[in-house]
Amino acid sequence: MGEAQVSLKHLYRVFTKPEHKDSKLAQIEQHLSDNIMDFLSQHVVTKKTSLEEIEKDFSQAGVPESPEFVSAHAESLLEKLVAHSVNTYSPTFIGHMTSALPYFHLPLAKLLVGLNQNLVKIETSKAFTPLERQVLGMMHNLIFDESDAFYDAHLHSARHALGAFCSGGTVANITALWVARNKLLGPRPGFNGVAKAGLAAAYRHYDINNLGVICSKRGHYSLSKAVDALGLGREQLLTLPCPAQTLRPEDALKAGLEYQAQGNKVLAIVGIGGTTETGHVDPLDELADVAKELGCWFHVDAAWGGATLFSSTNRSKLKGISRADSVTMDAHKQMYVPMGAGMAIFKNPEDANAVRHHAQYILREGSKDLGATTLEGSRNGMAMMVYSTLHILGRRGYELIIDQNIEKAQTFARMINTHPQFMLTTSPTLSLLTYRVCPASVQQALEKVSPQECDKLNQKLDQLVVAVQKAQREAGKSFVSRTRLECAELDGKAITVFRVVLANPLTTEQDLANILEEQALLAQKMRLWKELDKRAMAMLKHASV
Amino acid sequence: MGEAQVSLKHLYRVFTKPEHKDSKLAQIEQHLSDNIMDFLSQHVVTKKTSLEEIEKDFSQAGVPESPEFVSAHAESLLEKLVAHSVNTYSPTFIGHMTSALPYFHLPLAKLLVGLNQNLVKIETSKAFTPLERQVLGMMHNLIFDESDAFYDAHLHSARHALGAFCSGGTVANITALWVARNKLLGPRPGFNGVAKAGLAAAYRHYDINNLGVICSKRGHYSLSKAVDALGLGREQLLTLPCPAQTLRPEDALKAGLEYQAQGNKVLAIVGIGGTTETGHVDPLDELADVAKELGCWFHVDAAWGGATLFSSTNRSKLKGISRADSVTMDAHKQMYVPMGAGMAIFKNPEDANAVRHHAQYILREGSKDLGATTLEGSRNGMAMMVYSTLHILGRRGYELIIDQNIEKAQTFARMINTHPQFMLTTSPTLSLLTYRVCPASVQQALEKVSPQECDKLNQKLDQLVVAVQKAQREAGKSFVSRTRLECAELDGKAITVFRVVLANPLTTEQDLANILEEQALLAQKMRLWKELDKRAMAMLKHASV
Repeated sequence: MGEAQVSLKHLYRVFTKPEHKDSKLAQIEQHLSDNIMDFLSQHVVTKKTSLEEIEKDFSQAGVPESPEFVSAHAESLLEKLVAHSVNTYSPTFIGHMTSALPYFHLPLAKLLVGLNQNLVKIETSKAFTPLERQVLGMMHNLIFDESDAFYDAHLHSARHALGAFCSGGTVANITALWVARNKLLGPRPGFNGVAKAGLAAAYRHYDINNLGVICSKRGHYSLSKAVDALGLGREQLLTLPCPAQTLRPEDALKAGLEYQAQGNKVLAIVGIGGTTETGHVDPLDELADVAKELGCWFHVDAAWGGATLFSSTNRSKLKGISRADSVTMDAHKQMYVPMGAGMAIFKNPEDANAVRHHAQYILREGSKDLGATTLEGSRNGMAMMVYSTLHILGRRGYELIIDQNIEKAQTFARMINTHPQFMLTTSPTLSLLTYRVCPASVQQALEKVSPQECDKLNQKLDQLVVAVQKAQREAGKSFVSRTRLECAELDGKAITVFRVVLANPLTTEQDLANILEEQALLAQKMRLWKELDKRAMAMLKHASV
Repeated sequence: MGEAQVSLKHLYRVFTKPEHKDSKLAQIEQHLSDNIMDFLSQHVVTKKTSLEEIEKDFSQAGVPESPEFVSAHAESLLEKLVAHSVNTYSPTFIGHMTSALPYFHLPLAKLLVGLNQNLVKIETSKAFTPLERQVLGMMHNLIFDESDAFYDAHLHSARHALGAFCSGGTVANITALWVARNKLLGPRPGFNGVAKAGLAAAYRHYDINNLGVICSKRGHYSLSKAVDALGLGREQLLTLPCPAQTLRPEDALKAGLEYQAQGNKVLAIVGIGGTTETGHVDPLDELADVAKELGCWFHVDAAWGGATLFSSTNRSKLKGISRADSVTMDAHKQMYVPMGAGMAIFKNPEDANAVRHHAQYILREGSKDLGATTLEGSRNGMAMMVYSTLHILGRRGYELIIDQNIEKAQTFARMINTHPQFMLTTSPTLSLLTYRVCPASVQQALEKVSPQECDKLNQKLDQLVVAVQKAQREAGKSFVSRTRLECAELDGKAITVFRVVLANPLTTEQDLANILEEQALLAQKMRLWKELDKRAMAMLKHASV
């Protein structure tokens, strides 16, 4: 690797002169601009490389002593990093929530870095501050649909915030519960409030043993981080079983009443607007009633499913979301924005004041600096990406994509249902579904044999699903993920399933058919498959005797 | 504004076809690539536009109904957003910590978005996970300089983490104190630990009234957010006066002992490795001794100054940093990376386990998924920008820039000291300094007249500094910031001062001379200047009688 010269002149050049258009970095850029799909399929290697192998390229802990030429470095990025990245644009990469993005994000990314604004305060962000406030307002409007007068009064008010922009859904969930906590345990005569006096003093003052959060077992792991960080303790996250994948309102009410009868207080019920694992939506309207009855905050984690609100056809799936006190949305999921665009939206524009901070040289009292009510401080201008996508796609553009995603999931569910060697384990509410690969004989047997025998078959099936998922990933043509899921049909016992997210607009029905076919072929070649088939046949024979 | 067609075909195009090279967005991109300085000076308007005026362009809370053509949108971004942004590349924008960036970040930004990896887990980030771990290792090495064997054992270990990458210094500080809290109040026989059982139970079990954090009054506002969010309460942030701009170890020890004598426990002492306001460095080595004596965690907030460690000449200014338990660094400050690259580095690779989380489908036990020990969940691959800059500049490149920044600050300090109409209020330790504009007569008077008369002059001077700072900002050619500062010379009373950060490699001595000259001219034209001069002359006359 060539050593670049260490001189002020050289450094000045790095800051002021673009790379020559024939340089490696310029070539990479051009290729990305011309055809990103081609760039990725050319440079991302599909054959399996072990993590240990990749780690060898990143094993030096010393800071490189001498400068490196940009072109030499670009070459090494291609070999070491790009080659071993995940091709998230691929239409057959349907295992996670990242997808192909609209093309205009590539030039916008350059503009974002070129402007390099800091959104913590107006002085370093100027128009980006009103822009971000507008984006938060649009999301508020989408969810809560308040009057024009409401938005005129609050969108740019220094004493209000319609939400908090942040790096992702985890910080959004933490922010929402932070606001809820500080509001519940706020100042009153004789007490300075939890923000100032701390949690232990607040529990004493309000005579609370513990503060808890109720959600289903499908609640995102960020909720567990939130109750830990905020001092409630993970044991106070009451994760209720949900064999049908959604939180039953009567269970939430019962758990909440019991909890409160023990001298505790329920801080919040968290309803999920599209679980990460199966895309199910909790009964938000009924959960809002429960929250009301328990006198607690109602938060909806719609990081994935919130974008469904763009669709006239499908928005009713989130019925009740407008009764939430706070809602988490991730624009980097179904809003097709690059990573790093989470939002916590607050119904009541006063609520964020529960976490308002001031400082001398920044976030001065009465300022509109965004950092005053966000968990994060210095942040970049990702809101621009959300703003641009909202404008360029428009509500109707989003609607088309969201509707298409859900239809595609329904089509895939039908393909699985009619394929003799697959079993659908959860149907798509939104654009996620789960299923298993399974010999036809085993499917028959599962209907007929004893629960004990079923358990044995399911254990083997779990192994088969894991083996096929890994084999398919390693083959490199396509990727589905896997998870473990409790099922109502199995008395709440957990099984391992394939998990699919249909969010990439470039994924075709043919892609889906190919993915199934590849899985079937991989499975049938495995010793496990034959074993399962043999065992099921024996069970069936025995059962029919 | 033209309406684009709402059709699947149109949407497919948005995802698959780049803009034509003659389109507006392609033109913007080309201009950025060819000459970013020219792009910014051409499009960022320098004349003052009121925030209220800018807000008018961002006042619609409704989601746009119909799609918009990309080119039409690009045009509107230029007019509404870029025009009213801050030109952070400008060599005369020396009021904040954002600066010109190396050119290669523009194409890298495109690559980052093109790859769009999610660093929460290996499945969606692959090589980015080892890359980020290597970057954290390099920072660890820079600060703690452990042996090769140490890094071989820990850099890629699933059971260890050398740090947490995050969006910025605020999250880094919160993460560090979260780890400290969970470690101090960890599990032991009969108690599940604060992470599980919560803070109130932990205080009871450990028999603690309150948990506190000690720092100087120059501590960053994020520490106040941290003690609020983590449940300690802002009243437990013991911010000690620091008339000489640094925390005195004897004050910290005294405060800590008194605090602990009252049944409280000091969680951490936070030493500052470059205050945001003046760039002073706390006596880290001595504070490490105090932390040891109090038996508490020692955190160093080196968000700004950490990069000084690259310089052989200047790294001794951070002497003692290697005795910290955790250190915050922001690569988007003096490491010349775009916004969004904070890091909390932990001396002990076991410590991050105090906040380790697992989930079923992700962050599985034994995995190397980065999300298991970070506050954030889904995150983008900003670590690549840090990685690339470390390689392309190298330690010696950074050294040159850092040394140059400090020398430039010293030069500017000399210019201020020798200029009859300016007073230096804090000398540069790193590349920050503060000063005031002040008629020569007032400077004389301040030496001679009574403290009461000094107070009166200082109040007027405060107004003058504010007025000049605003007038200069509005003139649009250059920007310095302002803050309020307690000064040893004024018995700890606060005055308003200009604040300057010399981080832009493109800033020349001539730029600095021009900025001073502009301030002097603006000041002399003000009524306040004449008033001050007149009053000082009268005071001097009276004093000499």
